Amino acid sequence: MSRTVLVLNGPNLNMLGTREPTTYGHETLADISSLCRQTADELELNLEFRQTNHEGELIDWIHQARTRCAAIVINPAAWTHTSVAIRDALVASELPVIEVHISNVHAREKFRHHSFVSAIAVAVLCGFGVQGYRMALQHVGHLLNAKG
Amino acid sequence: MSRTVLVLNGPNLNMLGTREPTTYGHETLADISSLCRQTADELELNLEFRQTNHEGELIDWIHQARTRCAAIVINPAAWTHTSVAIRDALVASELPVIEVHISNVHAREKFRHHSFVSAIAVAVLCGFGVQGYRMALQHVGHLLNAKG
Amino acid sequence: MSRTVLVLNGPNLNMLGTREPTTYGHETLADISSLCRQTADELELNLEFRQTNHEGELIDWIHQARTRCAAIVINPAAWTHTSVAIRDALVASELPVIEVHISNVHAREKFRHHSFVSAIAVAVLCGFGVQGYRMALQHVGHLLNAKG
Amino acid sequence: MSRTVLVLNGPNLNMLGTREPTTYGHETLADISSLCRQTADELELNLEFRQTNHEGELIDWIHQARTRCAAIVINPAAWTHTSVAIRDALVASELPVIEVHISNVHAREKFRHHSFVSAIAVAVLCGFGVQGYRMALQHVGHLLNAKG
Amino acid sequence: MSRTVLVLNGPNLNMLGTREPTTYGHETLADISSLCRQTADELELNLEFRQTNHEGELIDWIHQARTRCAAIVINPAAWTHTSVAIRDALVASELPVIEVHISNVHAREKFRHHSFVSAIAVAVLCGFGVQGYRMALQHVGHLLNAKG
Amino acid sequence: MSRTVLVLNGPNLNMLGTREPTTYGHETLADISSLCRQTADELELNLEFRQTNHEGELIDWIHQARTRCAAIVINPAAWTHTSVAIRDALVASELPVIEVHISNVHAREKFRHHSFVSAIAVAVLCGFGVQGYRMALQHVGHLLNAKG
Amino acid sequence: MSRTVLVLNGPNLNMLGTREPTTYGHETLADISSLCRQTADELELNLEFRQTNHEGELIDWIHQARTRCAAIVINPAAWTHTSVAIRDALVASELPVIEVHISNVHAREKFRHHSFVSAIAVAVLCGFGVQGYRMALQHVGHLLNAKG
Amino acid sequence: MSRTVLVLNGPNLNMLGTREPTTYGHETLADISSLCRQTADELELNLEFRQTNHEGELIDWIHQARTRCAAIVINPAAWTHTSVAIRDALVASELPVIEVHISNVHAREKFRHHSFVSAIAVAVLCGFGVQGYRMALQHVGHLLNAKG
Amino acid sequence: MSRTVLVLNGPNLNMLGTREPTTYGHETLADISSLCRQTADELELNLEFRQTNHEGELIDWIHQARTRCAAIVINPAAWTHTSVAIRDALVASELPVIEVHISNVHAREKFRHHSFVSAIAVAVLCGFGVQGYRMALQHVGHLLNAKG
Amino acid sequence: MSRTVLVLNGPNLNMLGTREPTTYGHETLADISSLCRQTADELELNLEFRQTNHEGELIDWIHQARTRCAAIVINPAAWTHTSVAIRDALVASELPVIEVHISNVHAREKFRHHSFVSAIAVAVLCGFGVQGYRMALQHVGHLLNAKG
Amino acid sequence: MSRTVLVLNGPNLNMLGTREPTTYGHETLADISSLCRQTADELELNLEFRQTNHEGELIDWIHQARTRCAAIVINPAAWTHTSVAIRDALVASELPVIEVHISNVHAREKFRHHSFVSAIAVAVLCGFGVQGYRMALQHVGHLLNAKG
Amino acid sequence: MSRTVLVLNGPNLNMLGTREPTTYGHETLADISSLCRQTADELELNLEFRQTNHEGELIDWIHQARTRCAAIVINPAAWTHTSVAIRDALVASELPVIEVHISNVHAREKFRHHSFVSAIAVAVLCGFGVQGYRMALQHVGHLLNAKG
Repeated sequence: MSRTVLVLNGPNLNMLGTREPTTYGHETLADISSLCRQTADELELNLEFRQTNHEGELIDWIHQARTRCAAIVINPAAWTHTSVAIRDALVASELPVIEVHISNVHAREKFRHHSFVSAIAVAVLCGFGVQGYRMALQHVGHLLNAKG
Repeated sequence: MSRTVLVLNGPNLNMLGTREPTTYGHETLADISSLCRQTADELELNLEFRQTNHEGELIDWIHQARTRCAAIVINPAAWTHTSVAIRDALVASELPVIEVHISNVHAREKFRHHSFVSAIAVAVLCGFGVQGYRMALQHVGHLLNAKG
Repeated sequence: MSRTVLVLNGPNLNMLGTREPTTYGHETLADISSLCRQTADELELNLEFRQTNHEGELIDWIHQARTRCAAIVINPAAWTHTSVAIRDALVASELPVIEVHISNVHAREKFRHHSFVSAIAVAVLCGFGVQGYRMALQHVGHLLNAKG
Repeated sequence: MSRTVLVLNGPNLNMLGTREPTTYGHETLADISSLCRQTADELELNLEFRQTNHEGELIDWIHQARTRCAAIVINPAAWTHTSVAIRDALVASELPVIEVHISNVHAREKFRHHSFVSAIAVAVLCGFGVQGYRMALQHVGHLLNAKG
Repeated sequence: MSRTVLVLNGPNLNMLGTREPTTYGHETLADISSLCRQTADELELNLEFRQTNHEGELIDWIHQARTRCAAIVINPAAWTHTSVAIRDALVASELPVIEVHISNVHAREKFRHHSFVSAIAVAVLCGFGVQGYRMALQHVGHLLNAKG
Repeated sequence: MSRTVLVLNGPNLNMLGTREPTTYGHETLADISSLCRQTADELELNLEFRQTNHEGELIDWIHQARTRCAAIVINPAAWTHTSVAIRDALVASELPVIEVHISNVHAREKFRHHSFVSAIAVAVLCGFGVQGYRMALQHVGHLLNAKG
Repeated sequence: MSRTVLVLNGPNLNMLGTREPTTYGHETLADISSLCRQTADELELNLEFRQTNHEGELIDWIHQARTRCAAIVINPAAWTHTSVAIRDALVASELPVIEVHISNVHAREKFRHHSFVSAIAVAVLCGFGVQGYRMALQHVGHLLNAKG
Repeated sequence: MSRTVLVLNGPNLNMLGTREPTTYGHETLADISSLCRQTADELELNLEFRQTNHEGELIDWIHQARTRCAAIVINPAAWTHTSVAIRDALVASELPVIEVHISNVHAREKFRHHSFVSAIAVAVLCGFGVQGYRMALQHVGHLLNAKG
Repeated sequence: MSRTVLVLNGPNLNMLGTREPTTYGHETLADISSLCRQTADELELNLEFRQTNHEGELIDWIHQARTRCAAIVINPAAWTHTSVAIRDALVASELPVIEVHISNVHAREKFRHHSFVSAIAVAVLCGFGVQGYRMALQHVGHLLNAKG
Repeated sequence: MSRTVLVLNGPNLNMLGTREPTTYGHETLADISSLCRQTADELELNLEFRQTNHEGELIDWIHQARTRCAAIVINPAAWTHTSVAIRDALVASELPVIEVHISNVHAREKFRHHSFVSAIAVAVLCGFGVQGYRMALQHVGHLLNAKG
Repeated sequence: MSRTVLVLNGPNLNMLGTREPTTYGHETLADISSLCRQTADELELNLEFRQTNHEGELIDWIHQARTRCAAIVINPAAWTHTSVAIRDALVASELPVIEVHISNVHAREKFRHHSFVSAIAVAVLCGFGVQGYRMALQHVGHLLNAKG
Repeated sequence: MSRTVLVLNGPNLNMLGTREPTTYGHETLADISSLCRQTADELELNLEFRQTNHEGELIDWIHQARTRCAAIVINPAAWTHTSVAIRDALVASELPVIEVHISNVHAREKFRHHSFVSAIAVAVLCGFGVQGYRMALQHVGHLLNAKG
């Protein structure tokens, strides 16, 4: 059984650390990548870590994961609130999905309170900062071990 | 007068046949392509059949159709409900547009009941499975013959 | 197995051809009846073609179809948007239902965008003019042959 | 040119005089009929005065008026708020329509504030009691004389 | 004082027993009629038990009840949610009205949660199956005895 | 008993005849004033006919009418949809109020469908052109004679 | 099999008979308790009859009923409209629930038209006065005999 | 600095393991308590673990935590969606709050999609089953170590 | 420091005592003026007491208060619900504002439940009758003494 | 006649002075109690001053006040916005109710703008800080003297 | 052809420079008037520059512009969001209208996001500070030269 | 300090001049580019002028502008109404943003009235045709000179 986890990051997350530090903190996407890699190593998971500002690219990656990966951890960023296409891609992948947000979206603008992804995810977390990625990966490990 | 019909498929339709067969059936996009080609041959239409997960690519194709094609048959999939850009591109093409959905979107989640495309399409059909494409092409043939 | 199809027309459709030709075209209900009969003959289907301005009469006809017919093609016209009773009758018939509208209802007044029938129909089409009836019958033929 | 006016009364208006006199007054439908007849005589109009509790019957009468009548005065009663079919029939008649309500519907329950008929009527009045019918007929006379 | 109770049944209830047994059970309208008659006999009430798919017919029956009956028990079925005309007829009857639904409408589609009748009924019950009719009649007996 | 009727006209009605003739016709406010005066003479009513673009002036006039007038006929124009102050002034006058609109407001923009005045008026009419004023005055005459 | 029925009364029902008699009648909670006890005796049911103004106490009682009782009859009073916690407790009890309201809630303020309980109840009744409790108990008896 | 964490559980969570296992799993509240205690030991945190069906008791506990505790982990269960009082108590505590839900509330009834707590919490997670509590405690440890 | 308080009254308040006494009581604006003057004397405040039916006049007065007054007590009457201009004027005055309503607006029509003023006022009271003015002035005195 | 006034305080008000001083100020509930007692002494009223975080306890106190007290002054705090049960209890008490809020709720979150209590209160005030209690008691004194 | 431009300023704009400088800047209405005059001179336009807090005065000015002016530049301030009367006056003027706001209204309270004027204006700008007036005048010059 | 301005054009703007000339005029994107270049030269600004139908490409360009440019002028076209991702990218750029629309979006379909960009832009203009770009650039020049 695959132990590869795909960690996906949506638009503007490449700007992390420079962009609005009071909302998102000072850590960069490279820092998150390192944290995820270290966590994956501890859990004996393979990691694919990616970011894109192109919705189509994200969808292509989700499709490719279908037969190669065990789970998807996704921070859809702005697309959380607007993309039915990503929701449909995630359903089509037939993989367990964990939705991660660095900031607490419920304490921000009203249009950030609705997610097209949450209803089809296994689990959702927000506000844990970059640790949220680590927590999501640990839960994937937990799920795989339970199945395994 | 052009007898070329552009058949466009939106995001995730490349996954047909694997994705949620109870909703979409077992036929693949290649099957639909064959069905369309056979129908086009019967009707003496030229066919361009395309799919993309990239909204921008779809818009580019629609623009290019403007002077080369006679009609557009489109299954916008998830973009049906979210893309004003595709609506605007279709209007800019000044071509007759037929909107096709494989499943009956009215029997699914509420957010699938609204289409940005329908109001500017000539005609809309859903729930006819892959036959919907054939029906749309036959109607294009009907329209062109009426004009011709 | 029955090969009888009931084609039902709701209120004001008896006025077709005289009423608002820019919306509905110049063809009369008699023209549609002929088109349907010719299509049924081609498909070796029996046809019952009816129109009424009385909701109760339509409901009675749907009930009677239950054991005698193979499918219902219905243009509920104005009742599309207001009649739960017809929706319930169609469900009670336990027959496959195809909903047809001559004009593209999505390009008209907002109250015409919601249909009580669509959610319980197999398939829906609008904007194909009188050809929509022919297409619906062809799909019934397709379904019956698939079952047959 | 026809000088026949069709005066139509919707459901429950046959109960006038007995039903809720504080809302509708003590006059009966026969009283209204007399008032209308007397008014029509004064204006040299022909009058057809009808009431029904059957929506289909009302629609049939509207269709028949199309080539025989000069105008329709209608008190759609409860159907005001629920019947798209009557709205469509009135449009199909291609006749000027005047909408009359005996009581002031705006001072009653919220669901009585919306009318499907008003937007396609020439003019609307409410709260004038049975005199509203007389006023509507006088306006028809006024319109016909202006054309004549 | 009249001891006649009018029991009215709205559209599609003639299909009971055949239609959607998981929602409505296996009993037919004839079974309900028998149950009502037996209950009326026990309570020394006269019973008129009717069903129609024609709104106008229902309204006519309600009007006729005004001077002949002591109460109305009504299952308006689909008209519950759409008919202002029936509401107005019931008010015009000046009789106590008890609204009955076989299934629990609150556990079904959202459009079934609103009733035009409830606000002008004395009492409402749903989800008691065919026993709901018996309960309603018993309450009519109770009311008449209290007055008597 | 006073037989004085105050006819009030809201903002922009001084522009009648020049402003949007397809909506309001070619008659000027002076024409309406003449028509009202002639009607008042026929009915043996005293007439005060006024127009203002200042809400405060209109309110002052309504207050002054309280002890001097028998009724108010008002075309509140744009204030119909926005002024609670005029509604409150009319209620404070304790006079019967008839609301008049020259055009059929229900066939125009959605924000013109709600009136703050209608709920506290005796009667409302719209779409009768300048004749609407004459009709309103005739109804005032009718009411005063009934009381008288 | 248990034949114990738990009859629960929500906040302010201890004030019955003193509180708003035009809405709730003159009978006290003690009267309802007697009526229930007498009904239970007739039906050979055990009765537990309770009232509380403390939501937590009501939830505790529902939990305790889970293994000891056969059904719950509940008048949730004001909590009907506000308490998800009671809804969840009733679901957790895995018992059939009948919802009772003394007054016809549909004829009262709009916020009383929605019930969090109804969608998970077997059946709902309102407006039958204190007899509603008796009717609910009789239906429990009916259900238990049907199973038994 | 205090290293005591208060873990609070709202209504019906005492029924875990018995109640709706497809939604909440088979683990009991005692299992969660053990898991929390073990996690707290690993993290050198003191743990107070409580459940109540009484909103007032929960509020009292939150108040007492203000000066004694370092953080609150709360599963407000049904009160999530209805209790402003708990939100206000949490704000008044001036402690960091982590909101935990065992199931994915976004995949359930619409009224469960809004939380009064989320906007004032540091972080929110749902759908991680009982592991969610462990994750929340680990994050508290993380926060305290970062401050410490 | 200025000890002048501007007490402002909006439209129709000049009709107090004559207008709807069941809602507003029998006291006139002159009575309120006396009560305010007496209260101001007790508190050693200077009083300016004004009423207008002209929004522009009210705005001018508010502007003039900016440098001369210590506080504004305002009963905006109907403008409460419709005037953004008065809200903006009050903000521009940079004075503490107390909003007063004689009747309990929350027990009246729904459109009276929203106030454009409340969000920028220091404090709001309603339902205290004419005493509300006295209470507001006492609070101004309290505030000035606290600052002073 | 009783001269006892019950002053009730809802959830979290025991935290006053510690909780969010920028919103609620530095005074404690004990300070308010003293202020109320001093005011009551001045007015020769008896005072009962209570606070609870338990809705059920508040309801019990309101019930007990019915025959012993002359009026209720209530700061329902968070329950203002969520508790129909407290509204119903206050109505059942048949006592005059004055609703007090320390802060200006209209300048806070949108969900604090609606009160279930206001529509059934005699009068409402907010934003006057702790003086609001004193003002409410003075008004009770005023009312009792007026009756007395 | 007229080269006169009417620049209109709505309520409270006379307070500019004193009122909320963080929102509106430090420039006064006199500064704007100078800037407009200088711009008009550059463009060889005649300028009429006015401000009022009286809606009626603004409407009168708009009416007078009809035959004397070439265009209207308007900053309707608070009336933007509430005045249908000004919208109607602008339409009646049959002049091109440019709507100007000093601040970015879309970044302020929600009720400032809707404008009754925008839909009937030629063009709209906001957030350009006092330069917005200059830009609007330049565009008027541009339009007149294009026509000229 | 950078004097480079990035002018961005969203989807379908490459079709300008061909697409819907009654809405957008006859000028092409090349014409706008020339106009912008000429304006930039006059203002001694550097210009980067781009258009894309790919949202991801637009986001990438915005990111790159962050350290190289002084301001962004953007016509987001259809993405105005649907793209949170572009809004977030613009915020992340920390540059002043001016939003431009060629047509008056407020006079078009309702879904074009809301912009995700406006709330985070410095200024917004629409309806000025291609001159809107020139005006926006002039304002950038104005802002840079003010800073400079």
